[in-house]
Order: sequence, then structure tokens, then C-alpha cells
Amino acid sequence: MTERLKNINVFRSERNPIINPDDVIPSRHDFKVVGVFNCGVTRFDGEILLLMRVAEKPFNNDKKIEIVPLLDPEAGKISVKKFNKDDSSFVISDPRFIRTTSGWYLTTISHLRIARSKNGIDFIVDEEPAMSPENKYERFGMEDPRITQINGIYYISYCAVSDLNGITTCLASTTDFIEFTRYGVIFLPDNKDVAIFPEKINGKYYALSRPISTGCEARDMWISESPDFICWGNHMKLMGTRKQYWDEGSIGAGAIPFRIKEGWLEIYHGSSKINRYCLGAVLLDAGEPWKVVARTKEPIIEPEMDYEKNGFFGNVIFTCGSLYEEDKVKIYYGAADTCIAYAEIDLDDILYRLD
Amino acid sequence: MTERLKNINVFRSERNPIINPDDVIPSRHDFKVVGVFNCGVTRFDGEILLLMRVAEKPFNNDKKIEIVPLLDPEAGKISVKKFNKDDSSFVISDPRFIRTTSGWYLTTISHLRIARSKNGIDFIVDEEPAMSPENKYERFGMEDPRITQINGIYYISYCAVSDLNGITTCLASTTDFIEFTRYGVIFLPDNKDVAIFPEKINGKYYALSRPISTGCEARDMWISESPDFICWGNHMKLMGTRKQYWDEGSIGAGAIPFRIKEGWLEIYHGSSKINRYCLGAVLLDAGEPWKVVARTKEPIIEPEMDYEKNGFFGNVIFTCGSLYEEDKVKIYYGAADTCIAYAEIDLDDILYRLD
Repeated sequence: MTERLKNINVFRSERNPIINPDDVIPSRHDFKVVGVFNCGVTRFDGEILLLMRVAEKPFNNDKKIEIVPLLDPEAGKISVKKFNKDDSSFVISDPRFIRTTSGWYLTTISHLRIARSKNGIDFIVDEEPAMSPENKYERFGMEDPRITQINGIYYISYCAVSDLNGITTCLASTTDFIEFTRYGVIFLPDNKDVAIFPEKINGKYYALSRPISTGCEARDMWISESPDFICWGNHMKLMGTRKQYWDEGSIGAGAIPFRIKEGWLEIYHGSSKINRYCLGAVLLDAGEPWKVVARTKEPIIEPEMDYEKNGFFGNVIFTCGSLYEEDKVKIYYGAADTCIAYAEIDLDDILYRLD
Repeated sequence: MTERLKNINVFRSERNPIINPDDVIPSRHDFKVVGVFNCGVTRFDGEILLLMRVAEKPFNNDKKIEIVPLLDPEAGKISVKKFNKDDSSFVISDPRFIRTTSGWYLTTISHLRIARSKNGIDFIVDEEPAMSPENKYERFGMEDPRITQINGIYYISYCAVSDLNGITTCLASTTDFIEFTRYGVIFLPDNKDVAIFPEKINGKYYALSRPISTGCEARDMWISESPDFICWGNHMKLMGTRKQYWDEGSIGAGAIPFRIKEGWLEIYHGSSKINRYCLGAVLLDAGEPWKVVARTKEPIIEPEMDYEKNGFFGNVIFTCGSLYEEDKVKIYYGAADTCIAYAEIDLDDILYRLD
């Protein structure tokens, strides 16, 4: 910790984690919820609404086997696949993935679920999923939804993951959070962490995204424009990882960017070489958002609490949404890929950290 | 060779290779041309015009060092970087790349050059490049141009390669092949082999592309739509590699698709696990080009001639353009990443091979 870090005050809720896996009814009786974490957030109908990633896996009492859930797109339902852990080709590199000679799999499958609250802290979780995997791009699940409201329509970008089609980002929309319309793949594989700006800039929509380049081993943030949310282009590299910083491993959009006097403020995530995920902030030019004005040298929040350090995948703070209200940034974040937590940071504290 | 293969007649030009590196004046006196190969083709102003990838490298008489060319985007000119081959971190896995602890590099840098012909065989190569690397996305060069003519405007998609930004596809246009307008990155990294359809289908433009997915190790073909050539979306996986076929390693668009009675015919390339590149054909539905109607089980042309088997990178036949005229497919192709060759195949022969 440097001297400077002392100047930021992070107000974590005393009720953290505010949503736990135990608060979520599984989508099937033979599945258990192992994580409820990365969530988009919006105000809707007098409430604060979270659209959350819920990760489930099949019950399994046999320690010799791993049971993997995955969608059968033709049958339209989730099936399971069993692997013998003694099989020499079976590799479990981290708790999220397995690799075998027949391909790779996720150990959980995620759907999107809504939680609602009057005060932003006490949430009631819907009993049923809002959106569940249903097509070939979503075979391994739907992840990390982000909500952008424009003219009363709520646009939801989310990751769709599958073995044959990689990691894509898809779009859906809703006006009531009951009926959802899917628009298919808006960013080709591999691309995730898509955050759509909440208003047009110079007549165009903009979005942040994080393509993965094998060739140059880059996991950097780009910005793209669109006339219609469906088609994206004029892609420009926005900013990269930084060697020997907390965000040297990978970076990606976090919350939906929001407008402040100085420009667009984006709360993004960065990971270290050992997969420790923190949040930082970047200020983009108001009229030319592909220009970085300033960026925090240190994280604005990092894993410190037990629920952030320990879980399904520990040492992770990851956000898909925040609210900017009363000069505060109210951040809903996934902690350790397990639960949802809440923290407030004064905007001035963040601005002070921008370099 | 199966019985069936005998039914296809490939008429290679007796003048092959029709363009050699020796036919191309280097862009600088201290560079030599090591390859003139993958080229887009169009009829323009009474001639057949090729827009070719020209790969150059610096003269180097010192076998102990490797000299790598690359653009300095700020200075706007190409500089060179020297590596000691004795350095233990220096790895040259194939003649196209080197890897060092400081990153990866291409051993050559490519620009785009025009060649013109009255008869389609005897070409005069322009003395100067048509387009040269000039921005950060093009730091390692411009490659594999494809030309799509729509309403008198010639749209050129090409790969832009760089260390920091990966492999992107960019767009340019021209009406006279003298002045070119750049439109920046239209497909995010890593993505290449972009072929734009030559007319609107149901009011939309379409393009084939080949994103690279690290996660699922896929190098498959997708199809995307656009209102304006700049922004692309509604991406759909079109077709994948095929295990134990000639195209099991990777596939990608080759020529611009052309309309025949039965639908859209696309001449694509596929590579084996050992990087042997051949061409095949796929028939797409006329009104719904995201539907594969039929695909050749075997290649329609494969490396057989000395100039196809031996060169800078041997055993490669790779096309960026063909002309469909007089019921023949006239294919201009890069051979062994070294020279340009020409072959004609009767359309009926290709149709007969479609399964």
C-alpha cells in the first residue's frame, strides 16, 4: 500500500455478501447453486434490480467422477456428461474448467436470474431464471450480464460460452424484465466484457469490449461504434494491460460507463499474472470516448475481505454494474466467483486517484 | 486420390507462376521482395487487375543476425530491428515468425501492390505500392487483400497485423485504384480471411470471416451482416474444420463468393494439421447465405507443382480472388507464399464435387 492509497475510502456494506448461493433456488432439483455473482444493475419500477449470473452444477457424491452440465441445443435441455477423474487425459487446471482429449468443458453452467430490492441491500431473488441457455452459442452457459437503459429499453449484453463456438458476446433486450428478446451474437469469439454506453455520442452508439488475441497474447480493451446495437465496427484499441501493475494480466470493462462532468467514467477490472482481480477506473473523453484522459495507477478496490479472498475462485472482485447517484459510485460486484457484495466509493475519491 | 477426384480437371496456366518476386521492384533499395502472392482480383477499366500482397525483408548478409522490418507508426516509416540468433530466447518456429523474450515479430513486412493485364496471364506490376502500412494496426504489414465491387465502388478488406493489436481485418475503398480511403478496423482481433459478398441480400451486406478462438482452438468460418460495410453483427457460425479431412487444421474464406443458379459459391481454403493448404468449395443458400447447402469432401486443387510445394512457406495454395466467367472459375492464387499462379476449373466440375 502506498501513501496515496490511504486517500480512498471504500464503504463495503456490513451486510456483505448481500446475496449468497444459499439465497438462490436451483433451476433443477438435481442441481446445486455454487455461485451467484457477476450482475448487471439498473433502477426499474421503483426498485433496484440485479440481473445475476447463477452458476450451477449437478449433485455428485462420487469423488471419482466429475459431472459436467451442458445444453443439448437440439433437445433444448441441459444434459450431463460424466468423466472418470482417473483418466490420464483428464486435466482440471482450475476449478472452472476441465480439459480432456475429447475437448474442454466448464464445471458449471450459468443462467441469468433477477433479484429485486427497495433499498439496494436487501434483495429478493426470483424463484425462476430470467434467461436460460437455449442455443448452440450458449451450450456452456450465459455469463456476466450488463444492462444499458436507453429510451426505456434495457439492452443486455452477456457472454455466451460453448465448446464449438468459443466465447462470444450476445445481445438481448427487455422493457419489463419478464419478456426478453434475443438478437444473437454481437461480438465474435473470443470476446467478452462488453459494456454499451447509455447514450449516443455524435449520433452513434459505443461499446467497450475485450477481444482475446492469441497471436499477441493480448487481453486489452477496445471501443466500437454501432448504428443499431446489432452491428459494431470502427473498432479502436482503447487501452492495454500494464506491465508490473495490478492489471498486467488482463483487463476488461466492468460497469456501464457513466457520464460525469469530466467525461465518461468507466469502472473496469484488471487481473494480475496470478489471476487476482481488482477494480480500477478510467476516464474517457466526453465527445471522443476512444481517447483515454486518465487512469488509476492503483486499484480502487481489491480483494481484502474473507468473502473476496475465498470461494469458488478466490481473490476476485469483478463488476458488471454500478449506479452513480448522490456523487457516489455504488458498485455491485461478484466476490470470489461465489457471491454478490456491495460497496460505495465517493466519486471525488476516484477522481483524485486518476492519473 | 479417390476415383472421384479424377473427374475434376484443373487447367493450370503453362506460364505459371504468372508473377514472381523478381517481377516486383522493392519499395526500398535496401529491401528485397521475398514473396508476391495472395491477391484480390477484379476487372477494371478494360483490364484484369490484381491487388497483391508483396512481402519484403531487409537485405542481410550476416547469418548470425535476423533483421526484422516493422512500421514506426509515429514516425510514419518502416524501421528495422536486429536480433542475435545466438540469443537463447530467440525462436524461429517457421520462416514466417520469430519469437523472443521481447515479443513476437514477422520476418517480412507486406504492402499491397497492383498488377494489370489485358489477357489475365501477362501482367505488368506497378512500380510503387498501392497501399503501404501507415498506422498502429499495420505495424507488421498489410496482407491478403480481397476486392468486392458494388455500384462502382471497390471495397478492399485486408489483414492488418501488429504486435500490440493482433491480427485484425481493415477496410478500404477506391473507385480508381489510385486513391484509397481507409475505414479502420472492421473485425476485431484475431480475425482474418474476410470476404464481402458482392451484393445485398435481403437488404443487408454479408461477409465471411475467420475469427480465432483460443478457448476452443477453433479456426472456423462465420458469416456476419452489415448495413454499411463498417459495422458488422448478427454473427453466425457458418462451418467448421472437419476432423480427418484435408481441412481439419483451419479454414477461411478464399475468393469473394459469386452467385450461381444454385446459390452462392465460395472457394475457400483449408489446411491440414501440418499446414498443407488446399482449396475447396462450399455452396451457400441464395437467400439465406448462413445456410450451407453443400461442401466438397476433397480439395478442388491442391499443391502438386514444384512452385506450389516449394517456396518461402511450401505446400500452400491460397486464394483471395477469382473471376467467374464463361462457366469457368478463374482462380488467382498464392503458391507457397512466394508467387502467383493461375488455374481454371469448369463450374460443372466443382458442382459435381459438392456433397
